[in-house]
Amino acid sequence: MADDRFHVYDSTLRDGAQQEGLSLTVADKLAVARHLDELGVGFIEGGWPGANPKDTEFFRRARTELDLKHAQLAAFGATRRAGVKAADDPLVAALRESGAPVVTLVAKSHDRHVELALRTTLKENLAMIRDTVSHLHAEGQRVFLDAEHFFDGYKSDPAYALEVLRTAAEAGASVMVLCDTNGGMLPDELADVVHEAVGTGARIGIHCHDDTGCAVANTLAAVKAGATHVQGCANGYGERSGNANLFTVVANLQLKKGLDLVPAGSLAEMTRIAHAISEVTNITPNSHQPYVGVSAFAHKAGLHASAIKVDPNLYQHIDPAKVGNDMRMLVSDMAGRASVELKGKALGYDLTSEQSRELVERVKDLESRGHTFEAADASFELLLRDTVAGERRRHFGVESWRVIVERRPGGDVVSEATVKLHAKGERIVATGEGNGPVNALDRAVRVALEKLYPELAEVELIDFKVRILEGTHGTDAITRVLIASSDAAGEWATVGVGENVIEASWQALEQAVTYGLLRAGYGADPATTPASHGA
Amino acid sequence: MADDRFHVYDSTLRDGAQQEGLSLTVADKLAVARHLDELGVGFIEGGWPGANPKDTEFFRRARTELDLKHAQLAAFGATRRAGVKAADDPLVAALRESGAPVVTLVAKSHDRHVELALRTTLKENLAMIRDTVSHLHAEGQRVFLDAEHFFDGYKSDPAYALEVLRTAAEAGASVMVLCDTNGGMLPDELADVVHEAVGTGARIGIHCHDDTGCAVANTLAAVKAGATHVQGCANGYGERSGNANLFTVVANLQLKKGLDLVPAGSLAEMTRIAHAISEVTNITPNSHQPYVGVSAFAHKAGLHASAIKVDPNLYQHIDPAKVGNDMRMLVSDMAGRASVELKGKALGYDLTSEQSRELVERVKDLESRGHTFEAADASFELLLRDTVAGERRRHFGVESWRVIVERRPGGDVVSEATVKLHAKGERIVATGEGNGPVNALDRAVRVALEKLYPELAEVELIDFKVRILEGTHGTDAITRVLIASSDAAGEWATVGVGENVIEASWQALEQAVTYGLLRAGYGADPATTPASHGA
Repeated sequence: MADDRFHVYDSTLRDGAQQEGLSLTVADKLAVARHLDELGVGFIEGGWPGANPKDTEFFRRARTELDLKHAQLAAFGATRRAGVKAADDPLVAALRESGAPVVTLVAKSHDRHVELALRTTLKENLAMIRDTVSHLHAEGQRVFLDAEHFFDGYKSDPAYALEVLRTAAEAGASVMVLCDTNGGMLPDELADVVHEAVGTGARIGIHCHDDTGCAVANTLAAVKAGATHVQGCANGYGERSGNANLFTVVANLQLKKGLDLVPAGSLAEMTRIAHAISEVTNITPNSHQPYVGVSAFAHKAGLHASAIKVDPNLYQHIDPAKVGNDMRMLVSDMAGRASVELKGKALGYDLTSEQSRELVERVKDLESRGHTFEAADASFELLLRDTVAGERRRHFGVESWRVIVERRPGGDVVSEATVKLHAKGERIVATGEGNGPVNALDRAVRVALEKLYPELAEVELIDFKVRILEGTHGTDAITRVLIASSDAAGEWATVGVGENVIEASWQALEQAVTYGLLRAGYGADPATTPASHGA
Repeated sequence: MADDRFHVYDSTLRDGAQQEGLSLTVADKLAVARHLDELGVGFIEGGWPGANPKDTEFFRRARTELDLKHAQLAAFGATRRAGVKAADDPLVAALRESGAPVVTLVAKSHDRHVELALRTTLKENLAMIRDTVSHLHAEGQRVFLDAEHFFDGYKSDPAYALEVLRTAAEAGASVMVLCDTNGGMLPDELADVVHEAVGTGARIGIHCHDDTGCAVANTLAAVKAGATHVQGCANGYGERSGNANLFTVVANLQLKKGLDLVPAGSLAEMTRIAHAISEVTNITPNSHQPYVGVSAFAHKAGLHASAIKVDPNLYQHIDPAKVGNDMRMLVSDMAGRASVELKGKALGYDLTSEQSRELVERVKDLESRGHTFEAADASFELLLRDTVAGERRRHFGVESWRVIVERRPGGDVVSEATVKLHAKGERIVATGEGNGPVNALDRAVRVALEKLYPELAEVELIDFKVRILEGTHGTDAITRVLIASSDAAGEWATVGVGENVIEASWQALEQAVTYGLLRAGYGADPATTPASHGA
């Protein structure tokens, strides 16, 4: 399908940016735009130049720094102020000067909003639309109209709402986007209104919010009713309950309705792109997000895991590879032996029944005490190896450790850790400094072991997550720490649990280092006193 | 509407429990059941007794410990095994013996599943259904049928899928629930299939998953096509992308479609109940959840905040009070002065333009360095007071602090903190011990100040959240800590940011204590050297 017959229009950088907790620098916005272009959306709404200084800067820098292969930039803004000519309105000028090939103008299409929010007449509002659209169109930009509060406006005064669309179309706007700004619509009613709008002969777009949990369905219903332009945001970002999740909309339309919306091969990049964008926005990804969430194809129930061994399509609505995702086996107390065996096999071990049973018991026990193996594959593998070997083997034994963090008079904060370990028959005392307690402990362990195990220099602590698990039934809260480590060949994750963050961190760190040494080819030292593993 | 004409059926404790990371004790399950009953759902599916020992225990304890005012318990289970009589099947017996007034039997309605997963004949599968349903019905339980993979089954062999429904209905099942087990359906196709099922004359229910982001819409479409029984889970819990969010479904049907599904007054408890359930499940609530999320009615854009001052209904699809939620003003760099003024007013301060402007600048600056005021109202208020007063006033000055955490030979982990403070003209040195570094710091501060400020004994640190904020553009990650504190009169939250968790915790703790002292009526000491506030 040629690009222009159906529009995929992304508003992550404008409407999505209104999400609570989301704050992007201009560099962040450029990075997100590049990812969206990788997916192959048709339009990237970059922001509101003139009204938002960051956005003015974005469009300025985009001219030289953004090399879009597929998408066109759109500048968002409002119709001219009441009583002022479009050509004289400085905010309209900013839209012209943004350099964006497309301008999307938001206009009131709800009579009460015109009267109470804009405080002007219905007639002047139409003039504002006509004047601003024709002005920018004459100046050479393509104009889309965002008809704000369209559905509520249609309920209030249907003739006026449709008149807004006609006015914009006649003035040169190429798409009239119906916005469910308050997000209160349900698909059946929405489809009826879209049908009426399509009946005006104008080209119709749709922009939904998720306040009723139906943003995606509303968007699909609008397409069915004749809309040929869909708006949404990456990962469903947006104010309140968010905008329609553009990834979900695209995947649904392409995989279920057979529309070719993004270039060949792009859809299989969607999971990677969704996560890359969440790295930039620094918003924790929703693991349950349809299609791209880490849990989207993760099967937990023991029931399903044994069926999946038979035929994955029995329990999946699509092949996850189509969107670049994976089917994952989770180890948990509901999974039963089938999942543990599968996971063991995936790691290269063929467990006996007895070993499976014992491993499941150990996992259940540790999980009941706060461990999670779902995000800590290396800890799971260490547990599995211990079970297979029948004993705990470690490269070093721990005599003691101590961490000191102090704020000195004058304001400096310093962190220092001392560890006392046994390895290869030696007793080693070492001290490390760092920017925090965990960093200091990590440095101390390396100082202690790097002479005996030089490959430890390759191992790096790259991520650190802390979670306080609320105690239940009057017990104290416990702390769980997940550490991600890497060497030249890859990454792994370990988990630790303890009464406080330092204790939990030590446990995760000890396992991370042990696993790193195994990866480097070191078998454990049979003479080493076993360290406590999660006890 | 009388209870039985439309069923609201909750599966949080069975299907919802399959969510990655969700693990409930029997006590937790009983607590969740009580909350669901408070909302007024009609049926609570408690689990799979016989197959899952925790669930067998749940039904046993429910008989004496669960006093449901509104809901009925349902026991979930499978049809008898192939080739065995229902009366002889031990898992079927467990359903009988659960004591639940309702049994929901899951049965295959997809020919391929019968052949490949069950490994039996299509005819035997029907016999299994007929036999199990009639057996339990004769024994006095009400039987619902969950027709697993119904929609995929209907695509594969529509006649067989409908035959499954007829067989169950004839055997005595009162509702045939069509399950979109793989979650791949879209509303338009789903409605057509539901229509066909309704055409058999059986009473139809619907059970959707959110793999296409349409679970709620699918459920509503099914109701429109004639289903009179909806299933879902609290907060949209469930495997993969989750089950249909029962709260969203109920709110939509009740507020938008005029169905009376829950008792009068219950819907206004929904936000509280949704959060109470997430406390039990220990799953971080999704702040964007429709209706009940903390952000569901939170307006960020400066544009909207000024309009809301005019009329809240201009920007909200419903009055949040109907579901027990609130409209919240967020302070952030997009909000502009209108939000800060509103928030200041809500706290009892009338800010001048100059003060608003300065406060907004300070907030933007601190937020750019990792602070968040959205979840730390007390920190915001301290900042506001500083702005109004034109200076920073504190009750105590900090000379230094030191925290030591050590694991001793033998395995004990101990935490100790020493603080050196100035207050009311004195220099105080005090040490505290605790179960972790933050707890030890907290104790040390109290030991230091409790003689001068006895009311500090009322102040308690009740919650502690840590978040590592990824650095961008090569900068180091910073740690943000949120502390919740309480005294006899209420709770407050403070935020701290630093290079490591101890440093960040100190900042949040210092503010928490300061705020507690202000609440206790102590004005700040003008002679105290100002502490650094977020610098």
